[in-house]
Amino acid sequence: MIQRFDVGVRMSEMAVHNGVVYLAGQVAGDGSADISGQTRQVLDAIDSLLARAGSDKTKILRAQIFIADLADFAAMNVVWENWVVAGHTPPRATVQAALARPEWKIEIVVTAAV
Amino acid sequence: MIQRFDVGVRMSEMAVHNGVVYLAGQVAGDGSADISGQTRQVLDAIDSLLARAGSDKTKILRAQIFIADLADFAAMNVVWENWVVAGHTPPRATVQAALARPEWKIEIVVTAAV
Amino acid sequence: MIQRFDVGVRMSEMAVHNGVVYLAGQVAGDGSADISGQTRQVLDAIDSLLARAGSDKTKILRAQIFIADLADFAAMNVVWENWVVAGHTPPRATVQAALARPEWKIEIVVTAAV
Repeated sequence: MIQRFDVGVRMSEMAVHNGVVYLAGQVAGDGSADISGQTRQVLDAIDSLLARAGSDKTKILRAQIFIADLADFAAMNVVWENWVVAGHTPPRATVQAALARPEWKIEIVVTAAV
Repeated sequence: MIQRFDVGVRMSEMAVHNGVVYLAGQVAGDGSADISGQTRQVLDAIDSLLARAGSDKTKILRAQIFIADLADFAAMNVVWENWVVAGHTPPRATVQAALARPEWKIEIVVTAAV
Repeated sequence: MIQRFDVGVRMSEMAVHNGVVYLAGQVAGDGSADISGQTRQVLDAIDSLLARAGSDKTKILRAQIFIADLADFAAMNVVWENWVVAGHTPPRATVQAALARPEWKIEIVVTAAV
């Protein structure tokens, strides 16, 4: 009924239920990257997870973006707009919030259809 | 399978999938308004989007509120409580967060049933 | 079609729709507790709500955690990891945000399957 991926002791990275995919907040694997690099890493991680669930970025139902410093908003959007697919851009909300590790500049929480 | 509304190059304002409506974070069109005015504008925008999906404010499944300054919490709640429908008030969470434009005082992210 | 629980004038604590449970942001009833105590209170509240909907913590689809001070992150995680069930840990995202009452140290927003 619920399929979970990358199940750890604290959390899993993705759950699929009733045709909807719930991703954990995705962050950069390499926190030394700048906002462009971290955004690319996060979007790559989202692509990989969605693919494993049989979904993809054209099926995103909502993206919640947490950005550590709104001064990075414009540079993040350049990478984002290059990633989304014309005609299939998802509902999105972006706010500023400090993230769990100080080197992280962006965290994205995605919900998608399978 | 996914119906999107107001699809732009960065995001869309709403997606409908399997009987559930996912709205983008709604903000005030006129950022010069005070918290009461901005909250009214945001709730009006939510009403309009929900209507286009065949839903309405009695069918909200969750509202996530981001408020730029918690000093505005009480004034926001006055407008909110005047808007919600008795017996159909939705689950809600409110936290403080800086928003993408400095003039914005509130952003609300709504999930609803069709 | 939508079943609501603890419906107040401002919000309800839970809505169930199409096999999915949407909880309001849960906070500690006793705000004088430290982060460990508040986290336990919040997780107890989530357990109680989920039980009333015929769900439980093994069926969580996503947990969004707002923590008022990231210095409390490690202590929160100790309580969290003691609570989750091995093999059923949910997708999670944690960011720092000021909460509606200054004594609150943590707020958790849960979505689960019934």
